[in-house]
Amino acid sequence: MNKAVVLLSGGLDSATAAAVAKADGYSLFALTLDYGQRHRMELESARRVAASLGVVRHVIMPVNLRLFGGSALTDDIDVPKDMTVDKIGARIPNTYVPARNTIFLSLALAFAETAGAGKIYIGVSGVDYSGYPDCRPEFIRAFETTANLATKAGIESSPLSAAFSIVAPLIHLSKKETIEWGLRLGVDYSLTLTCYDPSPQGLSCGRCESCRLRLSAFAAAGVPDPIPYAC
Amino acid sequence: MNKAVVLLSGGLDSATAAAVAKADGYSLFALTLDYGQRHRMELESARRVAASLGVVRHVIMPVNLRLFGGSALTDDIDVPKDMTVDKIGARIPNTYVPARNTIFLSLALAFAETAGAGKIYIGVSGVDYSGYPDCRPEFIRAFETTANLATKAGIESSPLSAAFSIVAPLIHLSKKETIEWGLRLGVDYSLTLTCYDPSPQGLSCGRCESCRLRLSAFAAAGVPDPIPYAC
Repeated sequence: MNKAVVLLSGGLDSATAAAVAKADGYSLFALTLDYGQRHRMELESARRVAASLGVVRHVIMPVNLRLFGGSALTDDIDVPKDMTVDKIGARIPNTYVPARNTIFLSLALAFAETAGAGKIYIGVSGVDYSGYPDCRPEFIRAFETTANLATKAGIESSPLSAAFSIVAPLIHLSKKETIEWGLRLGVDYSLTLTCYDPSPQGLSCGRCESCRLRLSAFAAAGVPDPIPYAC
Repeated sequence: MNKAVVLLSGGLDSATAAAVAKADGYSLFALTLDYGQRHRMELESARRVAASLGVVRHVIMPVNLRLFGGSALTDDIDVPKDMTVDKIGARIPNTYVPARNTIFLSLALAFAETAGAGKIYIGVSGVDYSGYPDCRPEFIRAFETTANLATKAGIESSPLSAAFSIVAPLIHLSKKETIEWGLRLGVDYSLTLTCYDPSPQGLSCGRCESCRLRLSAFAAAGVPDPIPYAC
């Protein structure tokens, strides 16, 4: 059975991407980064999602990006709460974490090479998203090229079949379409956490950009969002 | 004064690259990765080198690559000790750490973007080296492209002047030439540690590929190596 590494944050998109990887026939090696995120509670969601998908191995790796700061998610900066959905993504918000997906994919690449996995699944979307540069197709393609030049498996593979592919199955989907696909694959969205600023009790705020995109997508899909909200 | 991030391992090459960055007129932000390397003693060397160069900020960041293993440097695999210098680099040895420089450069990129630095110096050499794929010019160029697509600063900069440059000043130099350049810049090589398998007392083994390349280069330069060896 072929292996895939999946980047699993505990959110809606990564849970769906992992379910797609499983449906594609791969045995799953999940990687979750404990990067000092404000919404560290998502690590517990990642554990639950990994268990529900029967992953072979789940690595939760500390990488303290608070040492650099520079983001509302990793520094003492307020998460914005009053942006309407139509404005999200128009400019890069302060929840942007410098180089986050480059770091995550680099670590996933190390995991993939040591585990013997040729595919790395990442749940980025370039459609309903916050405008983060490292969610765009051109970034994913550039990283894939880099990955195959960076590694022993990459340079030892045939030019006709690259050792590593970065698979971003949701990149051209709206979040509504992502949810619809996930539901068909049996993803249990009650296990996921999307909020950037959940309450200590685990209630999602319903007001940050991430909650707003999620709520709007569930509404568009005509499906109730199964997680609890503070408002 | 413009800023540069320098990847500082504590070894000969990174100390030289950092001295070049300083000579190029940059204020230095040093990043050292505590990645579970067998030769963790190099972290102390990195501290000493950083202090000798007057860096503005030195971040030593834990990223436990032992969670993945797969290398003699991060796993319970013996470091090879009997390769002659002429054979080093002919094939990738088991001291290769999967995706190491991709991970290091990604973290340096995060540091650079938050610190407002446009240059990232890395002391890789594609000449006297162990054959690691992530020390080659094509990898460095691919990562630089990725870095500018991955980041807010990258996509907001003018197409004529990229936000981030990866500077690898030693990439086309022999290790002898690196040492000669470093000595002209006043690098104190007694502060550095190159060995993959130093004794608990800090003596370099003199037999691993890294020691052999270093000793051979000092001999070629006609300069005594100022660090102590076990043999």
